Amino acid sequence: MKALPYEKIALGHGSGGRLMHELIRGLLLKKFNNPILKELSDSAVFALPGRLAFTTDSFVVSPLFFSGADIGKLAVCGTINDLVMSGAVPEYLSLGLIAEEGLDYRVLERVVNSLALYARKSRVYFVTGDFKVVEKGACDKLFINISGIGRLVKGRRLCARRIQPLDKVIITGNIGQHGLAVLAGRKGMDLGFSIRSDCAALDDLLLPLVQNTQAIKFMRDPTRGGVATTLNEIVQACGLGVIIDERKVPVSNKVKAAAELLGIDPLYIANEGVAILVVGPKSASSVVRRLRKHPLGRCAREIGVITKKPTAGVIINTILGTQRILGMLTEEPLPRIC
Amino acid sequence: MKALPYEKIALGHGSGGRLMHELIRGLLLKKFNNPILKELSDSAVFALPGRLAFTTDSFVVSPLFFSGADIGKLAVCGTINDLVMSGAVPEYLSLGLIAEEGLDYRVLERVVNSLALYARKSRVYFVTGDFKVVEKGACDKLFINISGIGRLVKGRRLCARRIQPLDKVIITGNIGQHGLAVLAGRKGMDLGFSIRSDCAALDDLLLPLVQNTQAIKFMRDPTRGGVATTLNEIVQACGLGVIIDERKVPVSNKVKAAAELLGIDPLYIANEGVAILVVGPKSASSVVRRLRKHPLGRCAREIGVITKKPTAGVIINTILGTQRILGMLTEEPLPRIC
Repeated sequence: MKALPYEKIALGHGSGGRLMHELIRGLLLKKFNNPILKELSDSAVFALPGRLAFTTDSFVVSPLFFSGADIGKLAVCGTINDLVMSGAVPEYLSLGLIAEEGLDYRVLERVVNSLALYARKSRVYFVTGDFKVVEKGACDKLFINISGIGRLVKGRRLCARRIQPLDKVIITGNIGQHGLAVLAGRKGMDLGFSIRSDCAALDDLLLPLVQNTQAIKFMRDPTRGGVATTLNEIVQACGLGVIIDERKVPVSNKVKAAAELLGIDPLYIANEGVAILVVGPKSASSVVRRLRKHPLGRCAREIGVITKKPTAGVIINTILGTQRILGMLTEEPLPRIC
Repeated sequence: MKALPYEKIALGHGSGGRLMHELIRGLLLKKFNNPILKELSDSAVFALPGRLAFTTDSFVVSPLFFSGADIGKLAVCGTINDLVMSGAVPEYLSLGLIAEEGLDYRVLERVVNSLALYARKSRVYFVTGDFKVVEKGACDKLFINISGIGRLVKGRRLCARRIQPLDKVIITGNIGQHGLAVLAGRKGMDLGFSIRSDCAALDDLLLPLVQNTQAIKFMRDPTRGGVATTLNEIVQACGLGVIIDERKVPVSNKVKAAAELLGIDPLYIANEGVAILVVGPKSASSVVRRLRKHPLGRCAREIGVITKKPTAGVIINTILGTQRILGMLTEEPLPRIC
């Protein structure tokens, strides 16, 4: 077994001094090796012509490791997905780490390995970063912030204002997996079976559709707040309504069972590898067909239709044959899910 | 007195649901009002031609408010300074907030006011953001991450490789103020007199020098680790040495007294409104003269000279007339200083 350079993260690792430089060169620079980062200057320097997308997300998920992903994979995929939702090809990432004094070095190393792996998979580069350490008890193990910059696909403008009545709403995969996987990973939680997070970068699934077709008018990934909240955001942004069909919303049997057990509606559970697309009525079936050819889009389905502004924003035709209003998430059933 | 929308920050404010949308619209969008942010899409979208600088920093300073600044001012100025050090005009910022459940809403509001004020002063815009809440005890009040994008001044390339023997080292102001101001703000610390943080955005002081002259070869702000550590970073990056003259390093009498009392060398204390410049030998005196015309550069001084690589990287001629090696910071005398 290789000897560890340190057993635990100490305050000195965030001091700006010798220990921090050792950690940066010994771990971060090695794993994220690229010519821009190697300069170790105050800012990364590069040129990116065209229109850019810029996004940021902090990740405070607990536990750090759970079925199907960990905070590192989640952070990279979450940031990539925010860029992809804007129709942008992800290019460069920043990394802000806040670690608790006493954090096991192996935990940090595992997370950094994961950050590096999923960045490499999507051909994005960590070009600038910051490492802080706070005293024991001042944060819970490890928080990550990633900001990302991408280049918008030329000639495409994904925008809620383009949405029109009769447009179709498509979802790219099974919902509710991520929130329940994180919950199941918490101490004292045992659902009796395992649910894997859907956490995944959606660049490979969605960017070819953006690049090669004009079909997609708008995309958003239903993370915190789930599908229900994201649909409310969409109708607020476009000033229209939407009717979705509960029977068509793809939910695995495991998620159905677990959600019932916990008294949570899967429509309000966070997802990390699923997107909601709004497409013109004529494009819907071909978009679903294309999505299904990709492993991440196998369960893609058309789930609803955009309507003229009704009194309520989001209407759901339930499995029971009734109709009800689907509001935004109003409480916090699952804190620290991402 | 105006009624507060909330007394305390709750987990629901970070849920992605209704409460979070209320907070974003009621506070953040109002204070950071700009057309890009108003879109509230997954990413901010804009075009920035030319070469760009991209940087990130997390801020975990404790206490949140201290003499001369607060975490909000510090975060904006710190990010702006990182961009300025690369010779870039700051343009767009992202904001990642991690709040502890139960945080007083007025604290958040004060910090957001400060973020907005100092962004406005430097004509930079918060165009994208993220708000997370963790349960009580999982973080200490409030952490902030800001990433920033700037445009490099055309025709300038600030770069350690341009540094040559006989180049002069200039410091733009008194050192040690920030670290001691934060320390003095901590519970149970009473120095008997007040030291104000030097926290300031250096765009107005330094960008005209970059834009109008070719004098500056390299800049870095001596934050964590202080002047001593930054000088070590500079000589490591350029492969040369430096000799500085302790008598010339500008330190206020208050900082001298407090540092002596605490047994800390001011050369290792963090600064947040001071930069170290490396300039050609012929430009040094004119650069110092120009700096001194600006309120933030009144105490600017030439403090040393670049040398051919000596055995040790940074040499200091001390007040006592002796010479010693000035190493990097090796411990953490003042955690959570930024």
